[in-house]
Amino acid sequence: MARAQPATMKGRDTRERIIRATAELVTQRGVAGTSLDDVRARARVSKSQLYHYFVDRDDLMRAVAKAASDEVVGGQTELFAKLDTIQGLRAWADTLVTLQHARRSRGGCPIGSLAGQLAEHNENARGELVDGLDRWEAAIRDGLDRMAARGELRGDADCAALAQRVLAAVQGGLLLTQIRRDPDQLRSALNGVIEAILAAPAMP
Amino acid sequence: MARAQPATMKGRDTRERIIRATAELVTQRGVAGTSLDDVRARARVSKSQLYHYFVDRDDLMRAVAKAASDEVVGGQTELFAKLDTIQGLRAWADTLVTLQHARRSRGGCPIGSLAGQLAEHNENARGELVDGLDRWEAAIRDGLDRMAARGELRGDADCAALAQRVLAAVQGGLLLTQIRRDPDQLRSALNGVIEAILAAPAMP
Repeated sequence: MARAQPATMKGRDTRERIIRATAELVTQRGVAGTSLDDVRARARVSKSQLYHYFVDRDDLMRAVAKAASDEVVGGQTELFAKLDTIQGLRAWADTLVTLQHARRSRGGCPIGSLAGQLAEHNENARGELVDGLDRWEAAIRDGLDRMAARGELRGDADCAALAQRVLAAVQGGLLLTQIRRDPDQLRSALNGVIEAILAAPAMP
Repeated sequence: MARAQPATMKGRDTRERIIRATAELVTQRGVAGTSLDDVRARARVSKSQLYHYFVDRDDLMRAVAKAASDEVVGGQTELFAKLDTIQGLRAWADTLVTLQHARRSRGGCPIGSLAGQLAEHNENARGELVDGLDRWEAAIRDGLDRMAARGELRGDADCAALAQRVLAAVQGGLLLTQIRRDPDQLRSALNGVIEAILAAPAMP
């Protein structure tokens, strides 16, 4: 259960500030290492404010998971629109890899990084991660469907399966990038799935 | 820096008991939520015993990361030996997917799950995760190299790149399986890379 969104802009700002402070603490200390007292101090809010916006700690972590999903998926909106060509797919892959260079391969995927800490302990937070993955995969699939509709994929291409494999390659590639501190891990994984998509390009 | 392995069997048993207790606590509460006091209580050891075997908390978490790597890679030894045929690859993939069914899609990869909590905070622990991934990938590559040597892969097949992509598919597939509670996520990701390997099978 979650509380309704605040009606005022000030309320929404406060709520956002609490979520941002929590997300920063989680990045630094992990979910288990982030107490509500830490959050209150960092976001400069009282206990009653905190409980005004969030039912409990689990609800706050659910909001952090939702924010991570929104950030990851929202940040790709423009790129998603061009996923209906191989050039657009490559540009999207290039952007993800370049971002990992800029981050010095740190942090992994905001969605994926929360999974290990939240998926087994907070069912509502897991639901937000599922929602983020679903929106991400739907955007990829939409691009592939449009390619297929224009005859740029073979008629029997399974766009749903291809989109799922692209997302798995993104997640696996990001995890290997983070552990090995090497953005080429993501690059190679994405090249692999783009090759798989290319392997079914021409109409017979 | 880590301490030398204990010379006596009793010492090794105690050290193992501490690592196992810590790993269980980390699974339940996360790295940040696991204190040395918790570990002492669960493993029934004194503070001086703890510091006899581990330099500090980071060193203990490094040992947990090494244990996860050893467990994951060691658990696949028999399967690795047969990775030099497509049937062997499929059997290995089936085993990983079956395991996720048995675990009700919970927990993810022991190596991957620790990455988000340790990679940015504990460089020695990250090193153990790298070592686990490297051994895992080397075993996959060794199988593919043997297939290539028998002429079952095309001469220009890049076994190193294929092995890396298989590992990325495993990690991404396991992460999606955990978040979505659906072992078919791993199945589909692995099918994708096995198809990629099959796409380069026959000698010209």
